[in-house]
Amino acid sequence: MKPDTPIAISRQQFEDAAARIAPLVLRTPLVHSPTLSRMFDSDIYLKLENLQKTGSFKIRGASYKILTRLKRITGGVVAASAGNHAQGVALAASRAGIESTIVMPEWTSISKQEATRSYGGQIVLHGKSVGESLEKAMEIAAQGKTLIHPYDDLDIIIGQGTLGLEILEDLPEAQMIIAPVGGGGLISGLALAAAAVGSIARIIGVQTVVCPSAANALRRGKIKTVHARPSIADGINVRQVGKLNFKIMQALVQHIALVDETSIASAILLLLERKKILAEGAGAVPLAGILGGAVSIPKNSKVVLVISGGNLDSPLLGRILHHGMLINGRIMRIQMQLDDTPGALARLLSLVAKHKANVLHISHDRNVTHIPFFVTSVSLELETRGASHIQELFEEIQKAGYAIYGRHHTDDLLPSSTD
Amino acid sequence: MKPDTPIAISRQQFEDAAARIAPLVLRTPLVHSPTLSRMFDSDIYLKLENLQKTGSFKIRGASYKILTRLKRITGGVVAASAGNHAQGVALAASRAGIESTIVMPEWTSISKQEATRSYGGQIVLHGKSVGESLEKAMEIAAQGKTLIHPYDDLDIIIGQGTLGLEILEDLPEAQMIIAPVGGGGLISGLALAAAAVGSIARIIGVQTVVCPSAANALRRGKIKTVHARPSIADGINVRQVGKLNFKIMQALVQHIALVDETSIASAILLLLERKKILAEGAGAVPLAGILGGAVSIPKNSKVVLVISGGNLDSPLLGRILHHGMLINGRIMRIQMQLDDTPGALARLLSLVAKHKANVLHISHDRNVTHIPFFVTSVSLELETRGASHIQELFEEIQKAGYAIYGRHHTDDLLPSSTD
Repeated sequence: MKPDTPIAISRQQFEDAAARIAPLVLRTPLVHSPTLSRMFDSDIYLKLENLQKTGSFKIRGASYKILTRLKRITGGVVAASAGNHAQGVALAASRAGIESTIVMPEWTSISKQEATRSYGGQIVLHGKSVGESLEKAMEIAAQGKTLIHPYDDLDIIIGQGTLGLEILEDLPEAQMIIAPVGGGGLISGLALAAAAVGSIARIIGVQTVVCPSAANALRRGKIKTVHARPSIADGINVRQVGKLNFKIMQALVQHIALVDETSIASAILLLLERKKILAEGAGAVPLAGILGGAVSIPKNSKVVLVISGGNLDSPLLGRILHHGMLINGRIMRIQMQLDDTPGALARLLSLVAKHKANVLHISHDRNVTHIPFFVTSVSLELETRGASHIQELFEEIQKAGYAIYGRHHTDDLLPSSTD
Repeated sequence: MKPDTPIAISRQQFEDAAARIAPLVLRTPLVHSPTLSRMFDSDIYLKLENLQKTGSFKIRGASYKILTRLKRITGGVVAASAGNHAQGVALAASRAGIESTIVMPEWTSISKQEATRSYGGQIVLHGKSVGESLEKAMEIAAQGKTLIHPYDDLDIIIGQGTLGLEILEDLPEAQMIIAPVGGGGLISGLALAAAAVGSIARIIGVQTVVCPSAANALRRGKIKTVHARPSIADGINVRQVGKLNFKIMQALVQHIALVDETSIASAILLLLERKKILAEGAGAVPLAGILGGAVSIPKNSKVVLVISGGNLDSPLLGRILHHGMLINGRIMRIQMQLDDTPGALARLLSLVAKHKANVLHISHDRNVTHIPFFVTSVSLELETRGASHIQELFEEIQKAGYAIYGRHHTDDLLPSSTD
């Protein structure tokens, strides 16, 4: 049996919160996806919170917290984060006219530091983990600043919940809302908002198999810190859920599903290639959940996927694209033997050019031991038009008498998927 | 002096058109961009037509044409296209319950063929150019099918114009609307819609320097076919504008600006990294226009950029990302000399690892002539955190005694920018 809700927020409270933060945040669109709806035989909508200011929902909670507590904030605010919370707090604070200090781990990328600085945050680089940064932030808070916790705080939860209010204003008949879960700020706000408006929607959370902190906590009935490994969904790589968040989830969240890294990468690619939007790993886990089958959705129902943010680093996006192109046959890798005579490589490349493949990489090595003496080894990475083009190239290369001894369609660029 | 408008469409006609195509198209969101607004000291909005069904506005005109002429279409429809028009016609036809034949050039990518087929189009591969495909389509039309022209057709123009109606319903006070121009279907519809609702907005078109067909035609006062070179913005690489489109543009379009390939690539990157949306080249040219200064926007005015589509091929996106990372200092390339002794390369890589750069590519070549005899040449491509990280790496590598003789920040992966 579900425990009672530890707290109830009224519709009026959420509407007041939404009105209060309205000058600082965007009301993001809820769009129908015909492609996904067809794929899953249901009506699938995307809440495009990646279009939000700072690129994620975090600005909502930070804005509400700061605007609500404004009179009591005398010495500025402080937060610890390597990502979206940093940017949310920095922008909310500067728009409210107060100073913010953001403690970031030493390894934080320059681009995230620069984004945070551009929103007006003063950056302190400290610690090898966000946990160590948080300790530093608490020290700074003790000197007279207000700490803005990323999730374990009722004001933050109400602020994030305004996203749920928007969804249910646009689609009151939603039957399922699927959202990512890290510390639990977003999903607990969402669940409280759904309860506040009397929605029938089931609230489903998604985490990664490499960091199942909320899933484990709900299963065991108590909070526990998990060991986490790196994930594409770094935004929800939170090793322990918040106390208040946990209580709300226990009462109002129906299920937490787990997804692996491969399905997250596939979901990012699908959103990019078919829906033309960039989701970060955490923003793509709801789609990963239905793609991989971790979440099953009833036929002919109205389902909302919360695309919570879009702050995906370009190098990682580049790797995901490359991985996807290998899987989809847009890139082929081939190793073959070539006679070690002048012109042999030029003839091979002419053949490739004739069949309209672009060479991406080439390596030509005479000094290998596993092939005959007067023969060299050539590796090619080619950009192709797809699986049938690859097949055509193989056939033509073989027909021309080259000995192919290696052929790859996938690579190992992504983190391993499961334990 | 501007010629008179050759034709006027009433607000009611546009509203009827919008109502008629409503079951087949999405009403796409118009979103405010705080980042761009700050950059340009103005209020900048994006019409996110990349979220449209089939990934571009082309479904609007195709749907209106087909639904309006439905009773007279007896033997199905036929169109020629290598891209967005193909998908628009295929989906509109199948939703209207009629057959479509799409003639595509022989070189059309498998992914575009597959997208068109998935929307119900029957594909005929014919011709080395879209022009040759169009000839074939006209042959097929002569056998009893209705040809759907991509732009030079009043129904198509009215259909595309519903996009303008939506913009001006959401932002009646818009002062400038900037849109891409290929054959002229979108911009002439947009201009007629703005006139229909009595908008004060100036309508600005953008083309590429490699294919300035509309810009040249407006300057000379007559249509002329231009020589075009390949462009990232393949969707507007149309060598001759439509006749009706030209007349409407003469009367209602204030200016056609030209942008180069580098600014298109930068605009795609900016939309992806800051706004989290994927625009194809044609969809990014309005932003390229203001980024590169080809379009100047008045301060404190309300400006709409029409992001007309998002169908950017993954391999091209991969190249644009890589190019952007080189420019932004997220990738560095370095060539240096290394003693030809066991362990020398391992020591260099340990140094790189200690400073937290990831190796993307490495080449180690003993047989080069421009360096001393007992020395080898090493090239590294490293993923870095940004410009200051690159500087740190250079200094540490030099301090460790390595002789650097090459260093690159940009590459030549993109088409050349101007004549």
